[in-house]
Amino acid sequence: MSTEESNNGVIFVKVPEDLPVINEHFKFIERKINISSTVLEKGEILIKNVYLSLDPYMRGRMRVSEKNEKNYINAFSVGKVMEAGGVGVVIASNNDQWKKGDLFSGYIGWEEYTKVSPAAAKNALLYKQALKDALDNDISLSYFLGLLGMPGMTAYVGLFMIGKPKQGETIFISTAAGAVGQVVGQIAKIKGLKVVGSTGDDSKVDYILNELKFDHAFNYKKVDIDQTLKETCPEGIDIYFDNFGGETLDIVLTHLNINARVIACGMISQYNNAKSTSYGIKNLGLIIPRRIIVHGFIVFDHYKEYYESFQKDMVQWLKEGKLKYKEYVVNGIENAPQAFLDMFNGKNFGKLIIKISDL
Amino acid sequence: MSTEESNNGVIFVKVPEDLPVINEHFKFIERKINISSTVLEKGEILIKNVYLSLDPYMRGRMRVSEKNEKNYINAFSVGKVMEAGGVGVVIASNNDQWKKGDLFSGYIGWEEYTKVSPAAAKNALLYKQALKDALDNDISLSYFLGLLGMPGMTAYVGLFMIGKPKQGETIFISTAAGAVGQVVGQIAKIKGLKVVGSTGDDSKVDYILNELKFDHAFNYKKVDIDQTLKETCPEGIDIYFDNFGGETLDIVLTHLNINARVIACGMISQYNNAKSTSYGIKNLGLIIPRRIIVHGFIVFDHYKEYYESFQKDMVQWLKEGKLKYKEYVVNGIENAPQAFLDMFNGKNFGKLIIKISDL
Repeated sequence: MSTEESNNGVIFVKVPEDLPVINEHFKFIERKINISSTVLEKGEILIKNVYLSLDPYMRGRMRVSEKNEKNYINAFSVGKVMEAGGVGVVIASNNDQWKKGDLFSGYIGWEEYTKVSPAAAKNALLYKQALKDALDNDISLSYFLGLLGMPGMTAYVGLFMIGKPKQGETIFISTAAGAVGQVVGQIAKIKGLKVVGSTGDDSKVDYILNELKFDHAFNYKKVDIDQTLKETCPEGIDIYFDNFGGETLDIVLTHLNINARVIACGMISQYNNAKSTSYGIKNLGLIIPRRIIVHGFIVFDHYKEYYESFQKDMVQWLKEGKLKYKEYVVNGIENAPQAFLDMFNGKNFGKLIIKISDL
Repeated sequence: MSTEESNNGVIFVKVPEDLPVINEHFKFIERKINISSTVLEKGEILIKNVYLSLDPYMRGRMRVSEKNEKNYINAFSVGKVMEAGGVGVVIASNNDQWKKGDLFSGYIGWEEYTKVSPAAAKNALLYKQALKDALDNDISLSYFLGLLGMPGMTAYVGLFMIGKPKQGETIFISTAAGAVGQVVGQIAKIKGLKVVGSTGDDSKVDYILNELKFDHAFNYKKVDIDQTLKETCPEGIDIYFDNFGGETLDIVLTHLNINARVIACGMISQYNNAKSTSYGIKNLGLIIPRRIIVHGFIVFDHYKEYYESFQKDMVQWLKEGKLKYKEYVVNGIENAPQAFLDMFNGKNFGKLIIKISDL
């Protein structure tokens, strides 16, 4: 006899111009799934979703899909469940490499159960053993969406590939208490850099300063950024890990040293601006006399080259107690839309995770 | 018996906020020099100046000099003769490595005669033989201020070091008929790229299209730049050699391909803007999804690594008839200030050279 389970989710409704509005642009819907009667094609697996990762880059997927567009990831499809990175457990499989009970990390939907395609199931094999090891070592599986997942890789690849950090240099990080920023700062400390970070909340300032041991931190909403950088980085800035964009980037440009590197990782301050209200960067011309590199990157390009050393280094540093990682866990898929919007106002303190179910 | 010669020159008077004004910010002055009674300290040489190079970067030297400033070249000194690259002939020497009659290329003043310091005389040794070879081969010595000098090196280093051109790629060049642009385009053609250039004058469009054989060229003042790039580069742009900055850069960003390189060489459109009127770049965020590198550079950093291959390649291509070079020669040091200002309005058609005297 088959039973029905709830399989509630969030679907994409309409492309927003600026800040998305719940129900107008994306909405929570109630659905059912009959697990025992779900048909899996050859290679497919069915995942019971446990954790869902919401990240700023996903705002970029809420766009009009065009042919031949120059982007690294496809737009969300109108009328379909939205996609996200996630962690779950296999509850049914028509794939030789996956069996019921296996831990899974990869793309899932904003929903309770996801049928994963053969191709996605194959990609996810990369993390299978590491998830099992983590479970055995009491490392939270949600870390595979943060410290040990895409945001952690983003920090690692951006810092080493573009930043090329040297002991004694000064790095400035915006959105420094975020999913990526907190990892950047801690790795930079391990490598002997002076680390300065900005964030938009006093409790986050306290965290990166006193828990993560940044050298300086400030609340960009409360201080004169230019003056504060003069005071905290009188020697200038060698590496800027930019998660924020906008006016902060413009001001930081004036504080960069000769041969500085700007790791263009994200520009969360600009993601919800219609084009007409985008901030215009006026100090870009300084990159010429100061020989500065501004380098945009997408972490997905660099897994082959960096994933192994990332995984090794991070687990090692974690074991040595050199890495902390703050998460902001919101319970229930029905709360995902509001949590996503709150992220753009910095309400999440640490990596935003939606907990969908228990393991 | 000693005789006096005229040694007229141009002195720096005051730091300009925007476009410099003759007599207010820099001015022509009449002076005399008594050559036979000029005392040369050990290592100094006296040059009779023949050609003077005026280049857009020199606007950046008309600034307030600050301690520990992050710049590649010092500011002009108020009350002193302004400096520039030049070509001349040694007419007196207290230096074992230089004798009367030797050809010289290096920093001189905006004046008829310049006493060159021991350090500068030593630096200039690099070009001594090449100048002699050029004279023997009927190559104009003024080319050492253009095609075979700093602007040519700028084109070469920027294109190869940052642009990393690959056959079949598309390059777009702004200020394409200028001292640097015309060299970039021709080298890119030699390397099998599709070359598109913009300039601000119809006769320059005609020149780069019909003489230099660019694939496309347009007058940015007369067309819709965005639409024109859509039509001429439907495949997108892989390399942008930016001499112009401002709105053109902002529009070009939207046409760049994934993994494109922006060679940030100059931003002539912005050099005379007070900070309040600088153009704000709104599309910089595109460098993230498209993984674009924007790299500022100063040619003076790269002589050691690139000068030899530059000299060899350029002379070879020149002999093979693969390189043309248009100069815009203004006679008389007294006309240098106006010629400098006219350069920012694009009045010079080709590399701006001041001819001070006959060889």
